[in-house]
Amino acid sequence: MIYVLYYWPGIQGRGEFVRLALEDADAKYVDTALLPEGEGGGVAALERFLEGDNVECPPFAPPFLKAGRRLIGQTANILLFLGDRLDLAPRDAASRLWTHQLQLTLGDFITEIHDTHHPIGGGLYYAEQKAEAKRRSKDFLANRLPKFLGYFERILQRNPVGGPGMVGAGITYVDLSMAQVVAGLRYAFPRASRKALRACPRLRTLHDEVFARPRIREYVRSGRRLPFNNDDVFRHYPELDG
Amino acid sequence: MIYVLYYWPGIQGRGEFVRLALEDADAKYVDTALLPEGEGGGVAALERFLEGDNVECPPFAPPFLKAGRRLIGQTANILLFLGDRLDLAPRDAASRLWTHQLQLTLGDFITEIHDTHHPIGGGLYYAEQKAEAKRRSKDFLANRLPKFLGYFERILQRNPVGGPGMVGAGITYVDLSMAQVVAGLRYAFPRASRKALRACPRLRTLHDEVFARPRIREYVRSGRRLPFNNDDVFRHYPELDG
Repeated sequence: MIYVLYYWPGIQGRGEFVRLALEDADAKYVDTALLPEGEGGGVAALERFLEGDNVECPPFAPPFLKAGRRLIGQTANILLFLGDRLDLAPRDAASRLWTHQLQLTLGDFITEIHDTHHPIGGGLYYAEQKAEAKRRSKDFLANRLPKFLGYFERILQRNPVGGPGMVGAGITYVDLSMAQVVAGLRYAFPRASRKALRACPRLRTLHDEVFARPRIREYVRSGRRLPFNNDDVFRHYPELDG
Repeated sequence: MIYVLYYWPGIQGRGEFVRLALEDADAKYVDTALLPEGEGGGVAALERFLEGDNVECPPFAPPFLKAGRRLIGQTANILLFLGDRLDLAPRDAASRLWTHQLQLTLGDFITEIHDTHHPIGGGLYYAEQKAEAKRRSKDFLANRLPKFLGYFERILQRNPVGGPGMVGAGITYVDLSMAQVVAGLRYAFPRASRKALRACPRLRTLHDEVFARPRIREYVRSGRRLPFNNDDVFRHYPELDG
């Protein structure tokens, strides 16, 4: 099976959570964000599915994944699907649902991180909502960031098998996503996240373990992983960093 | 199996999406929001799981559902779990994932609806973010509301079996949730939603079909279904209604 990943070109975004799973599992996939439009890539490739009249199960937004004849949208849903196939999820049904629950909570966290710089509307520029972004970021850093990080730190601590990840004895897709969120927070809020992560030794270790995994290292070195940048979910505006 | 639903007392909130599935399936469940604290209900019942030191799989936030020894959080995840058991989801794996994908997209919509009145922070009062709420609502009503409703209308239209719901020939949990969102939008934004729903005849019909289902009617009449109110996800502030 050769998977095809559809996502916006030029950013990691939510597509990166899917990429990390595919890369860690050494899955074969085409990343249309890296292909020119003439070769079936770019934004045109997305629009065929988002706006095409004959797409039976159209996704609302990228990322989405083509797996044979199936087209699957919503980041957490894609990972739920891939988790089994790529051996990045536990085998028993209860643990699979628990892993998915954690991914959904991480998804809520990611939305709140995004909204720090876009509290009024995703279609408006940051400059058009800078005052509101400052207010929202202040509230986010004071209340939501420690709450979410504290939650995931507690999940690592309570894993009865001891980890290194959140569920069971292996690394699952939610651990890959969590490490990416830690990396993104460090890019976006270097000061505030350093302070908040002081209380989260297990999350810091998880981040390091994930990015030390051979295939993830290879992926980072390959040049295929785009750098963080300010068109992305995680953005660094020093005025928002507490 | 007697399910136990945990949610904030006094509001429908995200708990209502779970309630509608349980009610429509005539499942036996205890709604702790309706029980006094002395009888194991209320906020104290939530806090035991959210803050207890010995909860192995603690949810991040309500709603969560106890099913035997299992504790399941995240609205869409609870519905994924219940869908199979309550016969409110299609049988084949691809359609189940598609139904879940639609529920997740609806979840994103619900978050954006909530954020119209709380664009700065969930821990602040509406009065503290009224100016920002006006700006966010304006953007939401102009861009996001028609985009989301148009998407779900299209999904109904493209159902190859013809509905009445979004997936297959039966009503699934995502249809129950969709009807609840239509009802909530009509409460929160009576003017703007009337206008937006003009272009969505299938969504209007789906709403009516769901609330005409015998067990849903019985539930609405029972008094167990709380009225919409302004402590809830859907809030009616006339100044935000376009």
